[in-house]
Amino acid sequence: MSGTHRRGFLTRTRNAVAALCGAASPLGLAVADTTKAQGAPNSGYGSRSRFETIRRWITPSRFPTSTASWTPLGDLDGIITPSALHYERHHGGVPDIDPATHELLVHGLVDRPLTFSLAELRRFPVTNRICFIECSGNSYREWHGPGGADVQQTHGLTSCSQWSGVLLRTVLAEAGVQADAQWVVAEGADGAAMTRSIPLAKCLDDVLLATAQNGEALRPEQGYPVRLLVPGYEGSISVKWLRRLKLTATPYYTREETSKYTDLMPDGRAREFTFVMEAKSVITSPSAGQRLAGQGFHEIRGLAWSGRGRITRVEVSTDGGRNWHEAELHGPVLPVCHTRFTLPWEWRGEATQLMSRATDETGYRQPTREELAAARGPHSFYHYNAIQRWLVGSDGSIRNV
Amino acid sequence: MSGTHRRGFLTRTRNAVAALCGAASPLGLAVADTTKAQGAPNSGYGSRSRFETIRRWITPSRFPTSTASWTPLGDLDGIITPSALHYERHHGGVPDIDPATHELLVHGLVDRPLTFSLAELRRFPVTNRICFIECSGNSYREWHGPGGADVQQTHGLTSCSQWSGVLLRTVLAEAGVQADAQWVVAEGADGAAMTRSIPLAKCLDDVLLATAQNGEALRPEQGYPVRLLVPGYEGSISVKWLRRLKLTATPYYTREETSKYTDLMPDGRAREFTFVMEAKSVITSPSAGQRLAGQGFHEIRGLAWSGRGRITRVEVSTDGGRNWHEAELHGPVLPVCHTRFTLPWEWRGEATQLMSRATDETGYRQPTREELAAARGPHSFYHYNAIQRWLVGSDGSIRNV
Repeated sequence: MSGTHRRGFLTRTRNAVAALCGAASPLGLAVADTTKAQGAPNSGYGSRSRFETIRRWITPSRFPTSTASWTPLGDLDGIITPSALHYERHHGGVPDIDPATHELLVHGLVDRPLTFSLAELRRFPVTNRICFIECSGNSYREWHGPGGADVQQTHGLTSCSQWSGVLLRTVLAEAGVQADAQWVVAEGADGAAMTRSIPLAKCLDDVLLATAQNGEALRPEQGYPVRLLVPGYEGSISVKWLRRLKLTATPYYTREETSKYTDLMPDGRAREFTFVMEAKSVITSPSAGQRLAGQGFHEIRGLAWSGRGRITRVEVSTDGGRNWHEAELHGPVLPVCHTRFTLPWEWRGEATQLMSRATDETGYRQPTREELAAARGPHSFYHYNAIQRWLVGSDGSIRNV
Repeated sequence: MSGTHRRGFLTRTRNAVAALCGAASPLGLAVADTTKAQGAPNSGYGSRSRFETIRRWITPSRFPTSTASWTPLGDLDGIITPSALHYERHHGGVPDIDPATHELLVHGLVDRPLTFSLAELRRFPVTNRICFIECSGNSYREWHGPGGADVQQTHGLTSCSQWSGVLLRTVLAEAGVQADAQWVVAEGADGAAMTRSIPLAKCLDDVLLATAQNGEALRPEQGYPVRLLVPGYEGSISVKWLRRLKLTATPYYTREETSKYTDLMPDGRAREFTFVMEAKSVITSPSAGQRLAGQGFHEIRGLAWSGRGRITRVEVSTDGGRNWHEAELHGPVLPVCHTRFTLPWEWRGEATQLMSRATDETGYRQPTREELAAARGPHSFYHYNAIQRWLVGSDGSIRNV
């Protein structure tokens, strides 16, 4: 940030404590003194403070095993989403799988159908990758105007973790891919037997059979004990609780690629197999539901990501889109990964709108809602990636507009 | 890894399942079918599977509030340590601090003594950094021969997280550093009032007042609600539960920098203020306590790190040090950060020793135990960073030697 903005923090600090320093407490702080007693002992597996209460927000649903929970993006720092707060989208709830007996079957158009236990998968070389997963339904409420009450509800179906596992191409090489194979049909072991068709070319590129998230075993709601990690593709393709991969000549047109995960275009055709999540960004702070604590310095913080590679640029407007400023990208800037951006901002009490727009390494720039709606028509539900606007009131309140 | 090693996985896979595929179950897998029932609903804050039991190992101690717990490095992937498994070292237990009332005092040789609430600290620009913290006592049992039973007990006092917070220099600029200030004395709010002296130059460089770890608020055992993060320095310098920073002309020679965190040299002098953690590496798999499942392909996996910057090279020997092979470094390779390395290995059933040695961007290469002991004498306890040897028996067992 600029030197200009670095100054002036002092005006916000509550007090100079010179007077306090000679007071009764040698520290001079009127707070509970926790140094006078021993604290809690070490623990085998830690948990968060009892004072921390942020949670995933769960979409109300008549079907509690087929709904979504949303990452509280406005309350988080950096690019790693805590596993406990990674968004969830299940179609048949979270199965309870014993990894000692779980197996993965690879069959169909292969020379050697094979099954793999977890221990067998773990003997292959491990690839580690920091990567986001975004549900193609993320931001679905925003197509026709403001929907979500805060950034958790508008953008919380994207999360970013370090995933570890075996490259699918390594396992497919063991099975021997036959010449007429063009697709891989992946099936989960959940109550929905979640099934998606994936182009073989992608499976021979960078798809992982992920067994770990952020260092330790996958969480149950993330597909324990093994899931697909299909970098850059809509989240439902990264099939969880993976039990089967069938190599086929054609896609299967499963329920999840016909009745769902397609969009009706104005000409009556359906967009199908719309895999890649295009570049997107959102300001996480200040954002809807938050309130500016006062005039003066505020750091605008946000996240940008693209299923096509690295984010190369994020621009931020603090005046409703009239002027755009280059935001700082915080490293590491990795492909298909959340990228943190910031911009220093002096708020002088005016009502205004905050917006961000991302550009990725292909040169693609995030569209406006109007541009996106013009391209996709009135019936789209998935793959909404337009510029988000937050309205700042002169009282410091912030709303989705 | 090389093409040569990529072949030959098949020999390990348990079976070809062609025969099974026509069996009673359409899937052909003789495992519990979890697709016939709905699973668990979404949750606000997730937890790991009931089948996952890895834990921090706690050093037995007569003083349960002053001991260490060790990260299970042999069970983890990638470079991010789950917060629940980050090592702990406390001198007076884990205090239970309400962040709404916690304050940080900055005083001493400053123009304006100041206190900061958490909300005030959070208004400064946030820096995010993936960084390891290593206790200077890590591997202390290894000075005079094999000590720990496994890699958790030999090397588990290092962990790596994404830390987020305000650069200390930004806060110090608010207070106004006086010309005669040379040190910053940091004090924790724990039952030990943990206190360390830090050179001002480091505090004006890259030290963070960290409020978040891996995206969410610090865990209690990591200093909730605010700790110092002093990149590359011995862990005790990254004072947890931070309540006070006093700028001084000289170090304070506190208990933790006189009776502890110094090493007696052969000439009777003490090495003191030995801040930087030198380059180090360890093979996490295969490692002591594990057992090779059979001859054939094994991926050697490990971690390397340096308090002086980036790891530039890791060499691995699979024959007790006669020959060394260049290991692959997995990106992102970040400064002062765990770096994952791997080497493919074909085990032919021979008894042998596995070793790794790291080189960092300064050109420093990890020493042997003999080289380190010659330089530091018989009385050292801290800062052990020598090459670790794992003895592989012809039965596949692995021991620390």
